[in-house]
Amino acid sequence: MISIEQYLEENKERILNELFGLIRIPSISSISLHKPDMYRAAEYWKELMLKAGADKAEVFETAGNPVAYGEKIIDPSKPTVLIYGHMDVMPVEPLNLWKTPPFEPEIRDGKIFARGADDDKGQSFMHAKAFEYMVQNNCLPCNVKFMIEGEEEIGSPNLGKWCEENKEMLKADVILVSDTGMIAPDVPSITTGLRGLAYWQVEVTGPNRDLHSGIFGGAVANPINVLAKLIARMTDDEGRITIPGFYDDVAEVSATERELLGRAPFNVDNYKDALDIEELDGESGYSTNERTGIRPTFDVCGIWGGYMGEGAKTIIPSKAFAKISSRLVPNQNHEKIADLFKAHFESVAPKSVKVEVTSLHGGQAYVCPIDLPAYKAAEKAYIDTFGKQPVPVRSGGSIPIISTFEQVLGIKSVLMGFGLESDAIHSPNENYPLEQFFNGIKTIPKFYRYFAELS
Amino acid sequence: MISIEQYLEENKERILNELFGLIRIPSISSISLHKPDMYRAAEYWKELMLKAGADKAEVFETAGNPVAYGEKIIDPSKPTVLIYGHMDVMPVEPLNLWKTPPFEPEIRDGKIFARGADDDKGQSFMHAKAFEYMVQNNCLPCNVKFMIEGEEEIGSPNLGKWCEENKEMLKADVILVSDTGMIAPDVPSITTGLRGLAYWQVEVTGPNRDLHSGIFGGAVANPINVLAKLIARMTDDEGRITIPGFYDDVAEVSATERELLGRAPFNVDNYKDALDIEELDGESGYSTNERTGIRPTFDVCGIWGGYMGEGAKTIIPSKAFAKISSRLVPNQNHEKIADLFKAHFESVAPKSVKVEVTSLHGGQAYVCPIDLPAYKAAEKAYIDTFGKQPVPVRSGGSIPIISTFEQVLGIKSVLMGFGLESDAIHSPNENYPLEQFFNGIKTIPKFYRYFAELS
Repeated sequence: MISIEQYLEENKERILNELFGLIRIPSISSISLHKPDMYRAAEYWKELMLKAGADKAEVFETAGNPVAYGEKIIDPSKPTVLIYGHMDVMPVEPLNLWKTPPFEPEIRDGKIFARGADDDKGQSFMHAKAFEYMVQNNCLPCNVKFMIEGEEEIGSPNLGKWCEENKEMLKADVILVSDTGMIAPDVPSITTGLRGLAYWQVEVTGPNRDLHSGIFGGAVANPINVLAKLIARMTDDEGRITIPGFYDDVAEVSATERELLGRAPFNVDNYKDALDIEELDGESGYSTNERTGIRPTFDVCGIWGGYMGEGAKTIIPSKAFAKISSRLVPNQNHEKIADLFKAHFESVAPKSVKVEVTSLHGGQAYVCPIDLPAYKAAEKAYIDTFGKQPVPVRSGGSIPIISTFEQVLGIKSVLMGFGLESDAIHSPNENYPLEQFFNGIKTIPKFYRYFAELS
Repeated sequence: MISIEQYLEENKERILNELFGLIRIPSISSISLHKPDMYRAAEYWKELMLKAGADKAEVFETAGNPVAYGEKIIDPSKPTVLIYGHMDVMPVEPLNLWKTPPFEPEIRDGKIFARGADDDKGQSFMHAKAFEYMVQNNCLPCNVKFMIEGEEEIGSPNLGKWCEENKEMLKADVILVSDTGMIAPDVPSITTGLRGLAYWQVEVTGPNRDLHSGIFGGAVANPINVLAKLIARMTDDEGRITIPGFYDDVAEVSATERELLGRAPFNVDNYKDALDIEELDGESGYSTNERTGIRPTFDVCGIWGGYMGEGAKTIIPSKAFAKISSRLVPNQNHEKIADLFKAHFESVAPKSVKVEVTSLHGGQAYVCPIDLPAYKAAEKAYIDTFGKQPVPVRSGGSIPIISTFEQVLGIKSVLMGFGLESDAIHSPNENYPLEQFFNGIKTIPKFYRYFAELS
């Protein structure tokens, strides 16, 4: 048996060429013109899995883009790892900011530059190659299933249903996902939490038309003034949200985990400088990483109403609008929160206006317990590769499909991401350092080994 | 000597034709294409004044549109009335809503339909004809001066300077203006106050770019949330403005005048129905007419920031903006108020954002004391024509040039308006009822007579 390091050394050129073949397919899921490319990418994945050693592989239809599925069952009594990844990518605009064309991968400064180099073609491809190594070298200790979808960048609208329909086929002990990042090349970390989301649009209606602010000003409620007051009272001076019941289900994080989370390196001056702000602001009693990781938020994402042009126009507008969202934390149900906000916001509005709250969007939070065997296995694998215990990180963002997996399939996910912040995912000149790419492939077989031992 | 009634009867057709000639000139001041029309209108006024009996008349240049000036000095020891009016009109869009072309006056249902029929060609023209009657019939009891400008609808940017430069020529005991309205044909009223105005734009800057609300939400001040809080705290639960010093100079209105103002007919249900609102809202302790007439306001005229498109975008925006205005009341200095707001708003902003307040516009309030001889003369003139004591009305709107006259020339204005709300000024199908037009011409000579007696 050759080591993974030696295997990668010997196959480096072929592996990169295979990845580049995948990257060259412009599988942009939000642009329907690229629908055929989604099928090309799915077929590419099917071939990848079969060539790596899968027993079978298939392209499944959904109401939207296809799902590439493959599996190798070595022994039904052994634990099963289900790999999740996505073959679709974000749009590439603005094109003029790319140094090289987004779908022509190029290696510069030790990094692969291309759309999807990291997110998620590069990261999901690592699993194909780790799998190939283990099969070719007879060291695969678990059953493996691959589920590579084509709609992650548009919110996975059809994958939940597909999982429902293929529940039996997808049975597994853990879902392994590489679609997140780590703090730095020398600071390994594993994302253990994702926040949920509730998102509303509010509409405040005052008079039935824009009014002359001279003739009516002072006597008629101004919907912008009212909206400002309503927004203002949704949070208090301590940065806490005042919607009754909002915190009822918030999972408190143990002192141990807060201590571990606190180990993530954080330089407040660098953070402020990068954003060009003088002071941070947030809920009293929590650190910056806690505020973004384990606490819910109340943010107005957009607001508009009245006159927005040049100069002065003296009106009381008829309407004012806002888009408002809350990031949610584990145990908060996004539908319950959506209802709580709507009921509260509408009930505290004065009778001088009409207020309508519409829920636009929502998703559950996700948390991976750090005492889960699969988490422990991941932790050990990172230690082997990077020489350091990975920091558990609660990401402030949301990947709603991860909590859908838990609800539909009843399986926890472990988010073994190897991306870096500098990878510029979703932006021009997306890239993925070769070192992270190969370190990822090296870490994955270690996870399998530890997971088989610990399960 | 023939009566004014008989004079109007005998000259009705000619008078209307002369007015129509003025109306047919499309003197839209905001469209530079119509600059030649401003000169045509000014020449038309010069001829009107000379034919009516002015000693002299002249078209004066300004940095913008011309001013038509004329005068008749019958005896320097007698009181002098300075007529102010404007020959420019508002744009006519949307053209498709006009029943007849805006610059082709037509009489329908006893009303003249045309742009400028009321505002202010129709109303200022009444003064030319009242003057003509008094000259032709040897009953002019005062010296008369006319100052007809061409930039009222764009904020009179050059008239203040022109007044400065022609202070001596413009010397008078009162300025008489017909550019406002009365409550109803059977409810005569005189506008005794105009509110002033301060207008700002505020810009709140948070992070140097729009941020992912998941990754940063909770830790970084959101400029929209902050702007909402700042706006909210500028007024209290009693509808009072909380800017320190804001009310310091507010002229309190005497109980007598409040009692008189309270006589203006007001039906709260009709008012609410017309605006389709369930409840009125404003400063505690004041009636609706007082809230719009004698009290200052704080209205957000426009607000914007972040994502305003369809659906959900989860960002913390970099910036948020608002356009804010206060209507001011007599004795409040708009420049002082502009500074007070800027200082207060900027000082209470949290350090987590940058706040910039820019003053866009301002004007002083104006008040005409109801014991002024000129006001008394106007009151008596209305009683003669309409059979009822006119109600003094504090208009919530602003005509900044009126307070400029007081500052530059030291002369009070009396606002003898004969327009009706149904005249649709600034809107399609502007009109002026013939009855109001002729009643106006009848009332004006009575004003001169009483003014000469009371001065």
